[in-house]
Amino acid sequence: MRLITEVAAEAGIDGQHLELYGKYKSKLSPSLWEELKNKPNGKLVLVTAVNPTPAGEGKTLTTIGLAQAMNAAGVKTVAALREPSLGPCLGMKGGATGGGKAQIVPADEINLHFTGDIHAVTTAHNLLSAMIDNHIFHGNALDLDPQRIMWKRVMDMNDRSLRSIVTGLGDGNGAVRESGFQITTASEIMAVLCLCDNLADLQKRLSRMLVGYNRQGEPVTAKEIGAVEAMTALLKEAVKPNLVQTLEGTPVIVHGGPFANIAHGCSSVIGTRYALKLAEVVVTEAGFGADLGAEKFMDIKCRQAGLAPAAAVLVVTAKSLKYNGGVRKDELYAANRAALLAGLSNMERHIENLGKFGVPVLVAINHFEGDSAAEIDEIREACRRLGVPAAVSKVWAQGSAGGLELAEALQKLLEQEDTGGFAPLYEDNADIPAKIHTLVREIYRGAEVAFSQAAKRSLAVIERLGLNGLQVCMAKTPYSFSDQPRLLGAPQGFTLGVRDITLSLGAGFAVVITGNIVTMPGLPARPAAEGLHLDEDGELQGLL
Amino acid sequence: MRLITEVAAEAGIDGQHLELYGKYKSKLSPSLWEELKNKPNGKLVLVTAVNPTPAGEGKTLTTIGLAQAMNAAGVKTVAALREPSLGPCLGMKGGATGGGKAQIVPADEINLHFTGDIHAVTTAHNLLSAMIDNHIFHGNALDLDPQRIMWKRVMDMNDRSLRSIVTGLGDGNGAVRESGFQITTASEIMAVLCLCDNLADLQKRLSRMLVGYNRQGEPVTAKEIGAVEAMTALLKEAVKPNLVQTLEGTPVIVHGGPFANIAHGCSSVIGTRYALKLAEVVVTEAGFGADLGAEKFMDIKCRQAGLAPAAAVLVVTAKSLKYNGGVRKDELYAANRAALLAGLSNMERHIENLGKFGVPVLVAINHFEGDSAAEIDEIREACRRLGVPAAVSKVWAQGSAGGLELAEALQKLLEQEDTGGFAPLYEDNADIPAKIHTLVREIYRGAEVAFSQAAKRSLAVIERLGLNGLQVCMAKTPYSFSDQPRLLGAPQGFTLGVRDITLSLGAGFAVVITGNIVTMPGLPARPAAEGLHLDEDGELQGLL
Repeated sequence: MRLITEVAAEAGIDGQHLELYGKYKSKLSPSLWEELKNKPNGKLVLVTAVNPTPAGEGKTLTTIGLAQAMNAAGVKTVAALREPSLGPCLGMKGGATGGGKAQIVPADEINLHFTGDIHAVTTAHNLLSAMIDNHIFHGNALDLDPQRIMWKRVMDMNDRSLRSIVTGLGDGNGAVRESGFQITTASEIMAVLCLCDNLADLQKRLSRMLVGYNRQGEPVTAKEIGAVEAMTALLKEAVKPNLVQTLEGTPVIVHGGPFANIAHGCSSVIGTRYALKLAEVVVTEAGFGADLGAEKFMDIKCRQAGLAPAAAVLVVTAKSLKYNGGVRKDELYAANRAALLAGLSNMERHIENLGKFGVPVLVAINHFEGDSAAEIDEIREACRRLGVPAAVSKVWAQGSAGGLELAEALQKLLEQEDTGGFAPLYEDNADIPAKIHTLVREIYRGAEVAFSQAAKRSLAVIERLGLNGLQVCMAKTPYSFSDQPRLLGAPQGFTLGVRDITLSLGAGFAVVITGNIVTMPGLPARPAAEGLHLDEDGELQGLL
Repeated sequence: MRLITEVAAEAGIDGQHLELYGKYKSKLSPSLWEELKNKPNGKLVLVTAVNPTPAGEGKTLTTIGLAQAMNAAGVKTVAALREPSLGPCLGMKGGATGGGKAQIVPADEINLHFTGDIHAVTTAHNLLSAMIDNHIFHGNALDLDPQRIMWKRVMDMNDRSLRSIVTGLGDGNGAVRESGFQITTASEIMAVLCLCDNLADLQKRLSRMLVGYNRQGEPVTAKEIGAVEAMTALLKEAVKPNLVQTLEGTPVIVHGGPFANIAHGCSSVIGTRYALKLAEVVVTEAGFGADLGAEKFMDIKCRQAGLAPAAAVLVVTAKSLKYNGGVRKDELYAANRAALLAGLSNMERHIENLGKFGVPVLVAINHFEGDSAAEIDEIREACRRLGVPAAVSKVWAQGSAGGLELAEALQKLLEQEDTGGFAPLYEDNADIPAKIHTLVREIYRGAEVAFSQAAKRSLAVIERLGLNGLQVCMAKTPYSFSDQPRLLGAPQGFTLGVRDITLSLGAGFAVVITGNIVTMPGLPARPAAEGLHLDEDGELQGLL
């Protein structure tokens, strides 16, 4: 690892703008922004993927490896990534720092605590929670309806026992009521942190967050609880982006990490903006497949921040296409041409969808050991048929050397194509049901939308409060274009069921809930934490 | 503020041993210990106080100011303090970084998040909690009795609604059971962090923590849950002491902050040891008054770590003595000679008690604006009568200049007195009831101890498990020598009621619970958080 001061210097960041966290991590001071803000922006490239499968597609891996390879090819490139959440790291999913020769480092510290941003979000969130219950305890001047408080508590842990709890039991411990915990990445504050322009905008957004309703049915916001300025103070360091590096010393901004279902699943706007000033090309990623991640990246993050992606890289693997073609998880290693061809329908639709945003697409075929040449050729051939460039990526095994084909293809795309055609999909001034219908028609390809009674009541509230200008944030299974996890490939004609619609007024979107969305994961029978340990040199081992 | 690299250099710490957190905070690397460990130790001075009163005694303030003044007087002195907890900071108590001209800085960052140590404790604690419930969920191979799990969850927040909760409600969310949250500083892990010798000892102590009992009534430890190595990894940075400075640039090690009732209320052993190698004199403090804080400092921290305090500074104020003499909170500003004389009984007993540990005492009269000269003289005269040196401290108003009299008196004490006579009060091999009786007789001056049925059952368990070698950690009201908060002054002849005895096997003590001990504070009607804000320059304002 190089000292982060060296990595920063090479990226053109003067040492005075660094707030070091040890020798290998640094926060970037707002003073850097003052120096950078009038510089021209680099080009923004989104790395997204086909629908996720149990085999793993390697989106973070590809983002890191591509940034390494672009630099190796002489293009000054910075990656902008999300911060890993501790919960999944200790649970099942493992770390989120790439793998093989395409990793960000120090992986152990990035995965555990990092610079404390997620802990700050947890604290700010739970301060508001405590102040809500305290408000009720001390007389409830706002006449809050204890049955209609939507603001829960959060913890950065996979802990199913906290999903649904009763609080305030015992004498003098407040009003008894049902509540629960979400994982911190599901906190609206995380979404707010990732969408805000700066600390002042953060505070404005925190102010308008909805915590519940009073007994007259009127919304009550965080501002009315009196917690907002203290919350802002608690987040004053968290709002600063973090600088780390890849194994090859490429600068990487790792900042923020909202859930990809009930939130928008992208790293912070602030971090992306810094990166765009520091590099010719910025490679970033979004959660889940392109139907959720890329769509929210375009329709929520880019729209709100006025960003325009120049290209999208769609990660596919032979295994993911076979899985989408109907092969079971344990048979994915065997060749299966028919399934691969069937599964290509999934890739094809994502490519088509990305085109609807006016963004040119490059397919990255993430190569796994054991993938057959015939299958890789089949994918290349399909891309040729579709008129879309494709390149094989072997960054896991080879680092930048394995990403040169991909880097060259991206350079070519950025030079040749018209990369200025980006537009979000739906209009700001369409109403919420119209926005949902647009997504279902254009992206998911369903036939109809069925709103539950609860969803209809929520739509009526949205109408009454004049909130149709919000974006929609779809909370849907990532495994299918539809709301049914087992409808793989490219399903159509289905009816999408909307169970409820909740309001994230600080983030600026209405969350459209389809199916059963879990916002507090559980631990598996053998949690990853059981294997995590420090070796004799004090190095962390056993991170998945 | 000076750069922390400069403060470190002046203290003799090479830059290679610093792990910076911004420009003004640093963790001290274990490599520094390798360099320091064979150096001679400085003298250890404990700052303690009479029983706390609503007027505030200024123990932390005096510790900081004394360290400043000692340096001004030419004695290389380092202070070793506890880390502030966020909960009280956002609630009622405010920050814990001193005040006026005797503060540690950057106060805002030390009070909010600091270097993340408390967040790491929260995370490690809650990982164990989640893994306990997960163990039960996945078949309960250890046959844990869900009714006898003592390990709760923690949060660094004042949130009374979480004191008593029911978890695991809803389908698929685990076993429904009663549980609750404590504030993080009440976590046994915080006590363990503050008593351990190093990371290896931390892991050993975490391993033996008691989480509950199985259905056969046998104890189940954290090690059996399989979480200990991951918890150690989560704490690998938290175990390193933090270096900051006073307003006058004095080096201060701020590390760890366990509760002073159910735990021992002292900053970390590791931090104290580093400080002793770096300075001629180390000034440290312990929670509450000398009956609890100093006693635990001597009997738990010093005994376990093999430390020997050379002197104790007992902080008194005219107001605290008047309060102990029966004056009500709102009448403390008025002169009241009779009450002052009556309240001196409290000071006198603490002086006598400290003598029982073989430690010479210096009384620090912390001067508040408005204190009358007559009252100060009365206190001086009482000390003269008792043959104990006393000095007035005006460090709040004047910084080191206001602490010179105190510093000179301390120097004189350290030079003239035999400072090598320290011994803990009770014998290691006495049984738990005998240890309790010793404290009640020698320190509190009660007549008898009444054990509840629950306490007797706990004593039987201690006997059966062979745990009489533990120290005792008294959880008692800090406001009185007795277990009754309103018995001020120097009560005697009372019966101390022991409600229960719990086991902190990692920390190495049995917690003797008298009265109703709250381990999760609540917020007041107007929480401090309501006044906390960033000003136009981004500086934190409104910290109490």
